[in-house]
Amino acid sequence: MAGHSAGTEIEQLIQLLARLPGLGPRSARRAALQLLSKKETLMRPLADAISEAADHVLTCTTCGNLDTQDPCSICVDTRRDAGVICVVEHVADLWALERAGANSGQYHVLGGTLSALDGVGPDDLNIAGLVNRTMSGDIKEVVLAVNATVDGQATAHYIMDQLEGSGANVSQVAHGVPVGGELDYLDDGTLAAAMKARRPF
Amino acid sequence: MAGHSAGTEIEQLIQLLARLPGLGPRSARRAALQLLSKKETLMRPLADAISEAADHVLTCTTCGNLDTQDPCSICVDTRRDAGVICVVEHVADLWALERAGANSGQYHVLGGTLSALDGVGPDDLNIAGLVNRTMSGDIKEVVLAVNATVDGQATAHYIMDQLEGSGANVSQVAHGVPVGGELDYLDDGTLAAAMKARRPF
Repeated sequence: MAGHSAGTEIEQLIQLLARLPGLGPRSARRAALQLLSKKETLMRPLADAISEAADHVLTCTTCGNLDTQDPCSICVDTRRDAGVICVVEHVADLWALERAGANSGQYHVLGGTLSALDGVGPDDLNIAGLVNRTMSGDIKEVVLAVNATVDGQATAHYIMDQLEGSGANVSQVAHGVPVGGELDYLDDGTLAAAMKARRPF
Repeated sequence: MAGHSAGTEIEQLIQLLARLPGLGPRSARRAALQLLSKKETLMRPLADAISEAADHVLTCTTCGNLDTQDPCSICVDTRRDAGVICVVEHVADLWALERAGANSGQYHVLGGTLSALDGVGPDDLNIAGLVNRTMSGDIKEVVLAVNATVDGQATAHYIMDQLEGSGANVSQVAHGVPVGGELDYLDDGTLAAAMKARRPF
């Protein structure tokens, strides 16, 4: 990477940084230089923060969220609606819904979507856990907040089938024109879905 | 950042990652999730690599390069031409020239450029060190490889003045059409410089 101008310590650092999403070889070099120029204010704190998080962050065995406690702080929060489970693909989606304050219920992180192409089957996702929670608990509603992709929708249909007879209502987040979005820039699929799902004004 | 859905360890990690160049809040969250999903293969090695580099990498007191030894491996390399000093703004520029194998001589890292706007004067850069090296050593040539910006050229002129009487020839990297570049896409300044510096074919 940096040729023989830099020690192996720097090359090792650059190679690991380049494996982060959003950083390529060039930006990893810039990041390494940035770190080395701010050893005490950024570099050592970052090393400590990574170690700390690696030691203390774990996956909630109930919902699949990442937290420093298991069950996670959302699962144990009694102010939240324990009768609603919002199903998401990834932890990042859970965080996005939390930032938006869009869900006052619980969550369930699948860990991805069914995908014949990538060889992801039902057993590779945390679907059994969702069925267990829905069957055993007093769940009124399961909201499917999976992505509006082909794989996401296939996963939603599969989950729908699995939850049949659970007594819970299964719903899905609305698909349509994004708030602030301009019709002119939207794809045909979104426009068709938005027209089809039109509601009284 | 991540709301109350994530522990403070994760938020701390995200905030520090977001301070790296090239990573914003969103990509820092993605990077944190990537790290947490690869604890043993990426997260702990990265924490170790950052600590190692913070402990062992230092700035060469001769040329300003970053290395695990001082003087750096370039300064002590007897196969290199000790009579040529290539002057660059930043360590990243040194690395770029090394990757290209473009300089067989020594280096000198200024640490930036003169800038009236940003309040950067000669004493803020490692110019005195360059003058010392040039005056005291057996230096035949000083190659100015600073950026072709207004500040870079102002810095080049200042260094030129300081090195007067040193006996060293001061040269500058050529400015012109980049190799592989198309004329149609180049700015007027580059085209004018390339025409002015035209050479017999």
